[in-house]
Amino acid sequence: MKRGDRQMEHVTIEYLPPEEIEKRSFEIITEELIKRGIHIPKEEELITKRVIHTSADFDYAKTLCYSEGAVKILKELIKNGADIVTDTNMALAGINKKALARFGGEAHCFMADEEIALLAKQRNVTRAAVSMEKAAAIEKPVVFAIGNAPTALIKLYEMMETPFGDTLMPNMPYGRHKEKMDWKPAFIIGVPVGFVNVEAAKELILKTDIPYIINRGRKGGSNIAAAICNAILYQIS
Amino acid sequence: MKRGDRQMEHVTIEYLPPEEIEKRSFEIITEELIKRGIHIPKEEELITKRVIHTSADFDYAKTLCYSEGAVKILKELIKNGADIVTDTNMALAGINKKALARFGGEAHCFMADEEIALLAKQRNVTRAAVSMEKAAAIEKPVVFAIGNAPTALIKLYEMMETPFGDTLMPNMPYGRHKEKMDWKPAFIIGVPVGFVNVEAAKELILKTDIPYIINRGRKGGSNIAAAICNAILYQIS
Repeated sequence: MKRGDRQMEHVTIEYLPPEEIEKRSFEIITEELIKRGIHIPKEEELITKRVIHTSADFDYAKTLCYSEGAVKILKELIKNGADIVTDTNMALAGINKKALARFGGEAHCFMADEEIALLAKQRNVTRAAVSMEKAAAIEKPVVFAIGNAPTALIKLYEMMETPFGDTLMPNMPYGRHKEKMDWKPAFIIGVPVGFVNVEAAKELILKTDIPYIINRGRKGGSNIAAAICNAILYQIS
Repeated sequence: MKRGDRQMEHVTIEYLPPEEIEKRSFEIITEELIKRGIHIPKEEELITKRVIHTSADFDYAKTLCYSEGAVKILKELIKNGADIVTDTNMALAGINKKALARFGGEAHCFMADEEIALLAKQRNVTRAAVSMEKAAAIEKPVVFAIGNAPTALIKLYEMMETPFGDTLMPNMPYGRHKEKMDWKPAFIIGVPVGFVNVEAAKELILKTDIPYIINRGRKGGSNIAAAICNAILYQIS
């Protein structure tokens, strides 16, 4: 036991001042990555480690995929005031919105909007899909941080690849016009979680030319989406 | 491919109407638990499966610990209007507050309160610890849903076991008086995540006589805390 540590019942509580806890956590993560023989490219290190910090799951060191230069591109986007759109209110709660606002960006989640719920019901599609259509009408670069719904990724793919050919989205309600046929997300953080279409939706995005950070496989979540956004924000703040 | 499924690029997207996606996910989880030879007691099934649904991580089937009759106790507490206090705003965002309100309960997170930040700084303890002191002053049964900070669990333990003997909490600011020396949480959902004191803090609570749902080990998170609360709410709504 170090000085300040306390023996409580049968366990030892390590005493650390609050500001040291995160630092110590990252040291442990670094040590364990070395022990496991996992090397993370320098550029990706702070993001992958923050994801592990958020999940205590070292699987992410193997499944997180970064497109060429992704971290640099994402930093530049945020620095230049890009907005973030997420598909979950939990991720919205977790993203450091004050840090984002310093660069002129705003974070949005349209999932709880009544209008979105109504449109989704009428069309028998998910609210996440309709949310993406609403987000596509934002008149500035948008970083998509998808932590829950694979249907959000599928919708993004459809809007990029088949802008008017898709029967799943007749009557685009948010005013996308012909001149927007070349609409593309500025960046996709693709970390939905689950069992239905999650892996397939991620594979779809991996084949596009959109810069991305994607967690291959079933795992992900709103906490992972927020952790990635915050890891970027902390690096540029 | 079934009718409605779509071949996009090299992957197949299974078509399901929105209301079927969750149902299908739970079927897949059930099938995989059987394949893995994991049996979950009936009472715990809907909670453990929702946690796996939220994380795509089958480890939880092995590490989630329930005290005797925990699910029944938690249901009764919520039905009788207990409040929920959580240590993360992400969990607060995720908990179905409308469903909780139908029973008279309210969900709280004090982490972003300025007063909490100030007290934590003055005393060089975490905001989570001070939040627990504030929660202990709530004049009704409280379910604690801890998804982030082990220091929240340690503080709960201290308040139960050594109400006035702990130098870490001089000057309890929220008016706990002598008649409250027998203060106890009504229930602890203990799923903090991380690397410093997380396992030890959970072991502390496992030794108390407070009813609990705890995830042994390092894993957990605000998403897990919210999933457990919602799994209970969906069963009684």
